[in-house]
Amino acid sequence: MIKINENYSRLPGDYLFAEIARRTAAFAAQNPDKSLIKLGIGDVTRPLAPAVVEAMKKAADDMARPETFYGYGPYEGYDFLRGAIVENEYAPLGASVSADEVFVSEGAKSDCGNIGDIFSSDNIVAVCDPVYPVYVDVNAMAGRAGEWDGGRWTKIVYMPCVAANGFIPELPETVPDLIYLCFPNNPTGAAATKAQLKTWVDYANRHGSVILYDAAYRAFISDPELPRSIYEIDGARECAIEICSYSKTAGFTGTRCGWTVVPKSLVRGGECLNGMWLRRQSTKYNGTSYIIQRAAQAVYSEEGKRQVADTVAYYMENAGIIRKELMAAGLSVCGGENSPYIWFGTPEGVGSWAFFDRLLHEANVVTTPGAGFGPSGEGYIRLTAFGNAENTKEALRRIKNIL
Amino acid sequence: MIKINENYSRLPGDYLFAEIARRTAAFAAQNPDKSLIKLGIGDVTRPLAPAVVEAMKKAADDMARPETFYGYGPYEGYDFLRGAIVENEYAPLGASVSADEVFVSEGAKSDCGNIGDIFSSDNIVAVCDPVYPVYVDVNAMAGRAGEWDGGRWTKIVYMPCVAANGFIPELPETVPDLIYLCFPNNPTGAAATKAQLKTWVDYANRHGSVILYDAAYRAFISDPELPRSIYEIDGARECAIEICSYSKTAGFTGTRCGWTVVPKSLVRGGECLNGMWLRRQSTKYNGTSYIIQRAAQAVYSEEGKRQVADTVAYYMENAGIIRKELMAAGLSVCGGENSPYIWFGTPEGVGSWAFFDRLLHEANVVTTPGAGFGPSGEGYIRLTAFGNAENTKEALRRIKNIL
Repeated sequence: MIKINENYSRLPGDYLFAEIARRTAAFAAQNPDKSLIKLGIGDVTRPLAPAVVEAMKKAADDMARPETFYGYGPYEGYDFLRGAIVENEYAPLGASVSADEVFVSEGAKSDCGNIGDIFSSDNIVAVCDPVYPVYVDVNAMAGRAGEWDGGRWTKIVYMPCVAANGFIPELPETVPDLIYLCFPNNPTGAAATKAQLKTWVDYANRHGSVILYDAAYRAFISDPELPRSIYEIDGARECAIEICSYSKTAGFTGTRCGWTVVPKSLVRGGECLNGMWLRRQSTKYNGTSYIIQRAAQAVYSEEGKRQVADTVAYYMENAGIIRKELMAAGLSVCGGENSPYIWFGTPEGVGSWAFFDRLLHEANVVTTPGAGFGPSGEGYIRLTAFGNAENTKEALRRIKNIL
Repeated sequence: MIKINENYSRLPGDYLFAEIARRTAAFAAQNPDKSLIKLGIGDVTRPLAPAVVEAMKKAADDMARPETFYGYGPYEGYDFLRGAIVENEYAPLGASVSADEVFVSEGAKSDCGNIGDIFSSDNIVAVCDPVYPVYVDVNAMAGRAGEWDGGRWTKIVYMPCVAANGFIPELPETVPDLIYLCFPNNPTGAAATKAQLKTWVDYANRHGSVILYDAAYRAFISDPELPRSIYEIDGARECAIEICSYSKTAGFTGTRCGWTVVPKSLVRGGECLNGMWLRRQSTKYNGTSYIIQRAAQAVYSEEGKRQVADTVAYYMENAGIIRKELMAAGLSVCGGENSPYIWFGTPEGVGSWAFFDRLLHEANVVTTPGAGFGPSGEGYIRLTAFGNAENTKEALRRIKNIL
């Protein structure tokens, strides 16, 4: 009799976004006349850049002729894209990353989960609290989380990110083996400074830990002093894997492409993790679609860069408006300056889900309750800047009206 | 100190296709004047069908406008494609599969490995011998293979597929929990009958095992009596997961799309595996690219069906020529009738690698030595029908000349 992976049975049933969808659908069914504005889920709304669309159509034409047809590609991605990533994402920062350290993926989410394959299942994992739920769930599935006690996993090290520490985690008492960090952060919108990341890099190197650095929102950083990559920090090449995405930057949420950097100088247990990841990818992955890699490459053309920058600016204008209006209403606000997420405190004594319901029922705005991201998210709400500009302004008018 | 996945250290270093590439490159460097023909690796050479290319370009245009833009899609795939798969791949066979049992993937290889996530690491795995190396390697990485003794893994159940049993495995003495079957088979080209599959389905149901049925080559079956899906067999919905691909059928090796069926009636350890796989995919995957799913959908349009059938016929004409010429030369041949692979015995007393070298050096044809697929592959060579028609004919002329 086959045995299933019992760790799945330990997962709590309710998924945050499913519960939001359930409450939203129930309200909409009872109030068909109300026009809802959704600033909850982090999906984008702006179309792909014209340069990206053109590149994709040209790549489709390549596939139509035997002499330009592409079959199986390299597991790690095509050199044309790996080279463009180094040239455009790392060289300008002075960060030392070479093309053979870049692995093209079909999105950051897959790599966030799959990277766990190269590590033992009995490592201790640390996450920020609040946190993007995927980091926790993939480790629970792999047997690294212990038991779910109704609010927390017994083996996960939760690192509170709250107003008192500026939403930047402090070094934990229990030393973790695998440390998930994400800056600019989802959900809080906080951005870490170079000095703050340096503390983490030194800590990981001191203890032989590995940092999984999620830099999916790096394009939204406007402050030139803030690091866009962990490889801007001395020592990061010896302890950090960086996971990146075109989803938010270039509107690829439905197109699917990202990349992961595993430096060759990152060695643990006598093994070069770059080699282990290459072995994992060549065995369990057959490369990202040629057409999609050509689309990603076009993000770095002259037109592509300008068009993508315009889209980022569009969202950051939304972020600025959300931030300004919430602050003007007297709420405490984090994010929205170097991040497309805005994290704000609910009115005194009102819980996350209660305020979510009020915003839904009275303002007809769909948000994300902070408690859904972990215990320290209680008392907060997350808004995203990825909506349409007019809708975003209208949502803020409605929110201010009910405060 | 983080602990790595020690199972990776147990993997033998040499990968079959890497060794072939090494020997081929060495020969080419020493003989720059020789024109090599490659019938070794299973990559396709015909371009995408025009209907597929058109659909992809139209989908790219959808992504260019905010009103038709697609962001995050369903983890399981779009209904338009899941519905088309049921209507075109299962309904005509009388196989009962519903759309919510179909999970669109970015290729069969990923799912062959990832499906292991939902099972415990201490299950016993059975594979055919010879075998597509990925089935073995992904289980070795997950800790299900035991130790590598230089030729075999100590915990894997190898089921010999040799001339004596018509290249169809017999039921093993040790009852396995997870059984990998692939028909039409890679590498032998053997196709299983309904009666043969029924034996396996009954065996799996009797013992509570699960069959992972790789049907990647189903489109190459010409005999109307042979099953194209395991769900043509009574009882398969209670024991089998089927993994399929557009790679060979529609030339998607570089485009990347496939699907996996997990029936809702497949229950093990009290859990519905369909629900477990959905949980896995929603946590560790963000859906297949919208553009690529539109391309796959076009395989089922009237033009798409005709164009794809033409490509399959092109390859099967190659297969027929290879089969006929090798038999005319007095070699024992399997496959090539309902499969794009042709598996033939080397001349008496000549080993796989020795004959591979002779074919390379004397005929200048690159093949795959059977021994690379497992112990029972010794004494065989695999050829593929995915080459250009002229080159294939020329390769056979050269091979016959040296026999």
